[in-house]
Amino acid sequence: MSQNSILAVGSMAFDTVQTPAGKAESVLGGSVNYFSVAASFFAPIKIVGVVGEDFPKTHLQWLSEKRIDVSGVQVAPGKTFHWVGSYDGNMNEAKTLNTSLNVFEHFNPKLADHHVETPYVFLANIDPVLQQSVLDQVRTPKLVACDSMNFWITGKPDEVRKTLSRVDILSINDGEAYLLSGEKQLARAAEKIHAMGPSVIIIKRGEYGAALFTRNNTFLAPAFLVDKVVDPTGAGDSFAGAFMGYLAEAHASREMAQNDPDQFENLLRRAVLAGCVMASFTVEDFSLHRLMRLSTPELVSRQTALMKMIRIQ
Amino acid sequence: MSQNSILAVGSMAFDTVQTPAGKAESVLGGSVNYFSVAASFFAPIKIVGVVGEDFPKTHLQWLSEKRIDVSGVQVAPGKTFHWVGSYDGNMNEAKTLNTSLNVFEHFNPKLADHHVETPYVFLANIDPVLQQSVLDQVRTPKLVACDSMNFWITGKPDEVRKTLSRVDILSINDGEAYLLSGEKQLARAAEKIHAMGPSVIIIKRGEYGAALFTRNNTFLAPAFLVDKVVDPTGAGDSFAGAFMGYLAEAHASREMAQNDPDQFENLLRRAVLAGCVMASFTVEDFSLHRLMRLSTPELVSRQTALMKMIRIQ
Repeated sequence: MSQNSILAVGSMAFDTVQTPAGKAESVLGGSVNYFSVAASFFAPIKIVGVVGEDFPKTHLQWLSEKRIDVSGVQVAPGKTFHWVGSYDGNMNEAKTLNTSLNVFEHFNPKLADHHVETPYVFLANIDPVLQQSVLDQVRTPKLVACDSMNFWITGKPDEVRKTLSRVDILSINDGEAYLLSGEKQLARAAEKIHAMGPSVIIIKRGEYGAALFTRNNTFLAPAFLVDKVVDPTGAGDSFAGAFMGYLAEAHASREMAQNDPDQFENLLRRAVLAGCVMASFTVEDFSLHRLMRLSTPELVSRQTALMKMIRIQ
Repeated sequence: MSQNSILAVGSMAFDTVQTPAGKAESVLGGSVNYFSVAASFFAPIKIVGVVGEDFPKTHLQWLSEKRIDVSGVQVAPGKTFHWVGSYDGNMNEAKTLNTSLNVFEHFNPKLADHHVETPYVFLANIDPVLQQSVLDQVRTPKLVACDSMNFWITGKPDEVRKTLSRVDILSINDGEAYLLSGEKQLARAAEKIHAMGPSVIIIKRGEYGAALFTRNNTFLAPAFLVDKVVDPTGAGDSFAGAFMGYLAEAHASREMAQNDPDQFENLLRRAVLAGCVMASFTVEDFSLHRLMRLSTPELVSRQTALMKMIRIQ
């Protein structure tokens, strides 16, 4: 068991997406796929999810070629979850045209023995009841992060609150933060969400970057200015993946950071930038195509460039 | 003649504004007023503009009590320029309901002897022909900055280009940058505008901050998260005022910065942050109300806070 390994639970899907740049039919999607590929640049990762019998083995092979352990992916009788959506003028907001849950409807994450002691845990956007079931199964993780979305915040508010009371880090977009908190301003929304449990809140702002709220500090990170946004799908999940990967890798390797609040704050800030950088690659192509051909030198180069774009002496 | 003094030419107006937070009737507005009050926190400033006979002397007294030389304000027979606008859902974009140019229609800036040798010059959003007339009158300024807007970019594109070929710094909002460049992406827009003349381009992004483009570098500055936006009117002009005031003060006092590109870049970045901070105060109340009761310690405190929100070690 690596000291920096991550367990991620979430959706695996086919996406059919239309954007102003074109259309992609039944391509690889799903929160845990974007998350894990992004995280794999930084730390080893194990995923738990469900696919149907129609899910190509080549997809799982691709994932395995990264440092992604896919042994927790169940293959269930039936079809894989399929999301159909489009982006019109506003590239920050997807319009869902159709959702076929298929085998994902009865997803019930069962953790294997080699999953339960993973030190870093990410609960992607799934039913908050299932998020809690995962938390019931893991043993003393060092850090737990989760995502959520409008559908659960509106549909199962009490269960979302129960999940939040048990996590360290919440990653969420601005619209969801407003909905969850009942506030319309980022800092006030974060304050309300802090009171629900998570000590670290990351609010994603689409093409404008992300804001990090710890109990005493705020960090405002810009998005990298990409040449052309082809498809925003997965930007938030790959943001979370790079954030969590960077955090796990640095947190595990620096004992200091675990106790020194200033060091931990700085580590979180760097992890947020890593998230911004990864998201900027994701949106440059459909599906996971850009991440699949992303090299570590390219990643490091853009991370350095973004650091330079916010530095003041 | 102070080595750091600024000459600003632009509109002086009454504004009637409706926002979700309320309504203000015939309050002090106009680009050069917002600009000069903001700049006055950093450097001495002289303004050139025109008002009607209905413009209260108390307004000019207020301005004089700051370090603002109002001797270049002409009082013309007739009424002062009056803008009527509203903000609905989108606080980043004003809807103009009515514009009564009044005495501003025949504004023709004539610079007095004590104006023409001012080292720093700001041409607020006025007819580009008048902006050039001001440039014809000033003698060897150290730095010239200008603003523009959709109305002129569409209506007098050739004259806008002529102005741009003669200025060092352009301050503009994102929508205007797209219109001016024909590009829909910030960095590409800046590249096109660089080719038109200005070596420094600041693109204002409303509640998301501002981007600074020099020929070799990009700086992305976030907006300060204000508790409540009451009225966004004047945010861009007060941004430009604080930017120019900070720049004039620091540029004049540091000979080094005038020749060392790295120092100049850093100075520009700090000036952009000063702009973001000033704009964040402006939007907290109608008209110039917040700036009028703003203290230097408050300003410094927020500037320090914003610096802390972008710092990475």
